[in-house]
Amino acid sequence: MKYQLAEAKQILERTPNVIRAMLQGLSDAWLLPNEGMDTWNPRDVVAHLVGMERAAWVPRIRHLLEFGEGRPFNPVDRTAEIRVSGHKSMNFLLDEFTFLRRDSLQVLSTLQLTTKQLEQRTVHPDFGVVRLDNLLATWVVHDLSHTAQIVRVLATQYREEVGPWSSYLRVIRH
Amino acid sequence: MKYQLAEAKQILERTPNVIRAMLQGLSDAWLLPNEGMDTWNPRDVVAHLVGMERAAWVPRIRHLLEFGEGRPFNPVDRTAEIRVSGHKSMNFLLDEFTFLRRDSLQVLSTLQLTTKQLEQRTVHPDFGVVRLDNLLATWVVHDLSHTAQIVRVLATQYREEVGPWSSYLRVIRH
Repeated sequence: MKYQLAEAKQILERTPNVIRAMLQGLSDAWLLPNEGMDTWNPRDVVAHLVGMERAAWVPRIRHLLEFGEGRPFNPVDRTAEIRVSGHKSMNFLLDEFTFLRRDSLQVLSTLQLTTKQLEQRTVHPDFGVVRLDNLLATWVVHDLSHTAQIVRVLATQYREEVGPWSSYLRVIRH
Repeated sequence: MKYQLAEAKQILERTPNVIRAMLQGLSDAWLLPNEGMDTWNPRDVVAHLVGMERAAWVPRIRHLLEFGEGRPFNPVDRTAEIRVSGHKSMNFLLDEFTFLRRDSLQVLSTLQLTTKQLEQRTVHPDFGVVRLDNLLATWVVHDLSHTAQIVRVLATQYREEVGPWSSYLRVIRH
């Protein structure tokens, strides 16, 4: 499926509601456990999404449009927001993500990107030349990847409880 | 994490809203593709959830409480609802799942299951003795597994579009 702005926005505008529908009001028994050492719990994932919304997507779109291949992306600190947001409640983080995403989509509309701009290139610090439509598609798949991560972390807490059914349940198979 | 009815119900009652938040209003470009031959698209997954709600969870809970180890579960046809629901719209299926799940949770409350009942056993046709709490935990993880599946099917459609970022995005790695 070819990248299309309008279709991509359908996913981007849904993600905050999807994650809120999953997590709002869940007890700490679900929200605090992770998948083991050095993994994220659902709260960490939402904090990461907030951080990326602030530091990655719109800033990188602007960077690419402004500098093209002349200047590589700055690296993004993926865990910065997790480290500084420890005092924030889940509801606060969900609201923050909702508002920041609304702003991002507002900016995206304002930019009125052309087909030519979608093909514009820049340099990623880790893997070289990328196009704007790669970045924009990655924004969508990044949402989905972390949505899947939250679902997987929740499911993992019942890995033992399902007994012999575990072999049927792909989300908890290794 | 030990199975607890109240915590499990937090997930079960959220699933229809989560899946609705993901899928309602998405264009066919997202809803029709699957992950390749003999895989399900998002519509098939919702039809399967409707079918399981009708034929699997509450019927098996009742079966187990009534017959214990005296009579194995009947097999469940996992694709029956997919085959017969081809004419139903996504919105119709989402409503159906919402209403059926509400009924299931109503039954679950009415049963007022005791700790002793949660340990009651029966025989699964494929893998032998299972307990009621295994079945109830499986209901939760089955919800999560198919939620993750829908997310994965959506993400798969942009596997090529993300360019070199694919290595960072676990949901589309094989």
